[in-house]
Amino acid sequence: MKIDNIDVSAYPNSNKKYVAGTLYPDIRVGMREINQYPTVEIKDGKRIEHPNAPVTVYDTSGPYTDPKINTDINAGIPRIRTSWIEKRGDTEILDDITSEYGRMRMNDACLQPIRFPVNHKPRRAAEGKCVTQLHYARKGIITPEMEYVAIRENLDNKERGIDTYITPEFVRDEIAAGRAVIAANINHPESEPMIIGSAFSVKINTNIGNSALSSGIEEEVAKAVWSCYWGGDTLMDLSTGDNIHETREWIIRNCPVPVGTVPIYQALEKVNGDVKRLTWEIYRDTLIEQCEQGVDYFTIHAGVLRAHAELVAERLTGCVSRGGSIMTQWTVLHDEESFLYTHFDEICEILNKYDVAVSLGDGMRPGSTHDANDRAQFLELDVLGELAQKAWQHDVQVFIEGPGHVPMHKIPENMQRQKEACHNAPFYTLGPLTTDIAPGYDHITSAIGAAIIGALGTAMLCYVTPKEHLSLPDLGDVRDGVIAYKVAAHAADLCKGLPGASVRDDALSKARYDFRWKDQFNLSLDPEKAKEYYLQSRRDAPDADDRFCTMCGPNFCAMRISQNIADKCNQ
Amino acid sequence: MKIDNIDVSAYPNSNKKYVAGTLYPDIRVGMREINQYPTVEIKDGKRIEHPNAPVTVYDTSGPYTDPKINTDINAGIPRIRTSWIEKRGDTEILDDITSEYGRMRMNDACLQPIRFPVNHKPRRAAEGKCVTQLHYARKGIITPEMEYVAIRENLDNKERGIDTYITPEFVRDEIAAGRAVIAANINHPESEPMIIGSAFSVKINTNIGNSALSSGIEEEVAKAVWSCYWGGDTLMDLSTGDNIHETREWIIRNCPVPVGTVPIYQALEKVNGDVKRLTWEIYRDTLIEQCEQGVDYFTIHAGVLRAHAELVAERLTGCVSRGGSIMTQWTVLHDEESFLYTHFDEICEILNKYDVAVSLGDGMRPGSTHDANDRAQFLELDVLGELAQKAWQHDVQVFIEGPGHVPMHKIPENMQRQKEACHNAPFYTLGPLTTDIAPGYDHITSAIGAAIIGALGTAMLCYVTPKEHLSLPDLGDVRDGVIAYKVAAHAADLCKGLPGASVRDDALSKARYDFRWKDQFNLSLDPEKAKEYYLQSRRDAPDADDRFCTMCGPNFCAMRISQNIADKCNQ
Repeated sequence: MKIDNIDVSAYPNSNKKYVAGTLYPDIRVGMREINQYPTVEIKDGKRIEHPNAPVTVYDTSGPYTDPKINTDINAGIPRIRTSWIEKRGDTEILDDITSEYGRMRMNDACLQPIRFPVNHKPRRAAEGKCVTQLHYARKGIITPEMEYVAIRENLDNKERGIDTYITPEFVRDEIAAGRAVIAANINHPESEPMIIGSAFSVKINTNIGNSALSSGIEEEVAKAVWSCYWGGDTLMDLSTGDNIHETREWIIRNCPVPVGTVPIYQALEKVNGDVKRLTWEIYRDTLIEQCEQGVDYFTIHAGVLRAHAELVAERLTGCVSRGGSIMTQWTVLHDEESFLYTHFDEICEILNKYDVAVSLGDGMRPGSTHDANDRAQFLELDVLGELAQKAWQHDVQVFIEGPGHVPMHKIPENMQRQKEACHNAPFYTLGPLTTDIAPGYDHITSAIGAAIIGALGTAMLCYVTPKEHLSLPDLGDVRDGVIAYKVAAHAADLCKGLPGASVRDDALSKARYDFRWKDQFNLSLDPEKAKEYYLQSRRDAPDADDRFCTMCGPNFCAMRISQNIADKCNQ
Repeated sequence: MKIDNIDVSAYPNSNKKYVAGTLYPDIRVGMREINQYPTVEIKDGKRIEHPNAPVTVYDTSGPYTDPKINTDINAGIPRIRTSWIEKRGDTEILDDITSEYGRMRMNDACLQPIRFPVNHKPRRAAEGKCVTQLHYARKGIITPEMEYVAIRENLDNKERGIDTYITPEFVRDEIAAGRAVIAANINHPESEPMIIGSAFSVKINTNIGNSALSSGIEEEVAKAVWSCYWGGDTLMDLSTGDNIHETREWIIRNCPVPVGTVPIYQALEKVNGDVKRLTWEIYRDTLIEQCEQGVDYFTIHAGVLRAHAELVAERLTGCVSRGGSIMTQWTVLHDEESFLYTHFDEICEILNKYDVAVSLGDGMRPGSTHDANDRAQFLELDVLGELAQKAWQHDVQVFIEGPGHVPMHKIPENMQRQKEACHNAPFYTLGPLTTDIAPGYDHITSAIGAAIIGALGTAMLCYVTPKEHLSLPDLGDVRDGVIAYKVAAHAADLCKGLPGASVRDDALSKARYDFRWKDQFNLSLDPEKAKEYYLQSRRDAPDADDRFCTMCGPNFCAMRISQNIADKCNQ
């Protein structure tokens, strides 16, 4: 389908495949199957075709790439998890939105033109119930969500005879131990479950969102779907401009991946940007508003303490986290401890009624390689570890945000300290950027750091686009950022020895060696771009079946020569 | 100046600075000084300016960015090393080109229109003399080239009070031990000396060259100058199409960085691509032809042995090195040992008459992550180690080429084995690419591997452009590839703790924190692109002096907020 003129309807020569559950036969895990052309051998003048099996790959694009599903952004995408949630029988549908602000927006007739057309009533845990995946996991219950992610992680490893440790029971155990998270708000049943944890494939998060300087609702929805199309596993809506509430509703109703936010941004909007006027009550109402819309995880900078403010002044680049700087300023202005810290138990009590995960924000992440691994950063990390344990006491799922700007030699210490201080809660880092000297190329400076920290065990990598530090990303930047991070995440998966991780690499390499150009394109992370580049040299041969590389030309193709050698040796 | 419509005349707000030698007061080492605007403080309504010192950076652009030098590609650039070489008194000027092929081209009147207009007679070591930097180093002689690179590596560390181990004597010692190379053919006096060795800053090599499918002479010269402008430290001319000889002459006469080639490509052209007809005599003539033109280093795939051919057949992607596949095929067709291997002593005897370094090619580099670190690759590496020692016996400088496609966890073994097998000769790798699934983005898949292997001690990284595997790079791709590799090399330098490596990062970070946008652009690896991206969001403020980031908009700027915090804390 097309949204705002972007086309996300299909991947080339691929089909959507659904795998059913065993424990839950009605779950259908969507995957993408990339078909391949046969390898052609010419023997004694005869053409012999050797078939190449399709390659199954992880698919984050949701229903948009299934031609059998008619998607319509005015209706939202199918709510696949509703029946799973209802069967658990531990939730209730509310008559009205709980948040005062939410009700005010809902009752404002002027907003009708920009409001999402369908009104879904919010769902909440029934009185005395807890509805988090962590809660179920600790009770020994394997949920449909858990079986779903187990199937999703394994792709077709079983059919390929690849051993795997990832079973539904393993998933349950990882979640119970706090080592993995399935961020799945009961009010976002459109979301296809996915898992964030170091034992699983490395995930990537993308950021979208308008700012005071930018863009409209349809554009934001298009960006969201676009980022899923290219491979974003989760999506943060970082909007700070007008109509945050309505924009978010459109995004969530159309988003097949978990959505995260930083609620302090909206809270600050509510007090017209005046940090001093922020209160726990306004923040609390914002949390509930967003819980009931279906946000799957909140970045909460609860580790920024009053005592840390002085450390900011010592740094080369101060505090570069928006949420962190807001809260630091608040603690200084009030000379009081942060309300996010003092009210953290209440926050958890809200979150566990909807199963919203908390992503503990690193307000003190270094904004320059100079400030990496400093006291401010690591003192905050210790606080995050303490808060993670508090979240677990409330059965709230938690992961920990990390830097930032870190030179390569200081990366391992980040991972090591995070594991220790945060008791193996999943780590979710922004990059890190390994040098500061390349604005315009920070998707690359950070893909280096991301691959390294991913290989060391970081569970999710927050993407960085080429526009980082300079401007807001457009669609092309989102694509560039997503692919750079898919590269980093996949390089890390190969390094970790994740079961089946090399299947796609090997298939693409074989296609390359066979001169199956179309398969090489189709198996790649960005088939369109690969083909486009190829055709720049071969406008005369758009069928892409040359038996040589465009790099070397027909006379110097190493791979063709080495096929001749192989033939010779095999004679 | 402009060549073929590309402009490489100056870097923004920068000036060329020359530092004279101490041992050799007449050498002038060109560097780039980036000027900065003052930091502005508003105190009690008054504007106070705190000056920021200029930042000196390594400059590979040669005379093109010096407004005092008039460059003209028809005349070539200044031959700065001629007097140094002449003072040594160990060379002679030849009346004519030694190579038969070279003489034939020179005497062909039809080639007049495409021939470089100035005829420089070739220089060679006088009878019984050896003119390599290794020879001098072993004799305890510090050459101007050695002092030049010592100054060049240190930039303004001394003025900044940064301790450094890099002295002319240290350089001499590294070269004498074979741990570093100054590739500086006596017939390429235009080249500004640079050093390749793990104790120094990590260098990057760029590849240009026409193929049967591509481009003309002026375009190739423009690409060469362009790659130097963006930061390429050395340049390989991999042309395989028509007029290789003449194209190379134009490139060398206009190139301020060392030029490398793979002579087997041209040798094969001479036999019309018929591998079987390749002979030692043709290859030998090609070497001499290129030595006398001024090529600074040759990639020679002398480690590909007859016995290795069978191993190629076992691989997923065979042999992907052009030179390697040619030689493998030759050994199979003739059922004979490679003439590059059997004649290696004679090769060295030629090279040490001109001081051409040998870059021992890895004909068996893996072309897929599947084939990484296999027997073919490591058996060849052992042969390269043996050949390196042979080169040293002839006082020939040598470095070793490495992979290729290697997943992250297999990278350290490459470095470790290379050090052992090749007795600490400098390592020069292509990437490595850490996954195979991203054609169109292989500058990124490989920048990850390059940064890692650079940090482990690889001395030079051969760039990969986004067009790798798909097409020949255009100017935009060259720029993207160079910057991706400058990022990788610099990330590695920071990791290695190279003296002064973080000066530029810290200056840029400070500029960022001060909202000195123009300085942030100018200090970056690609000022033009950084500015262009910034202006996409700020068309209304082209002066770039906003006191907030375009990312967050005026109300949410973390850095502005944290400056307020710092002010508050400092009150």
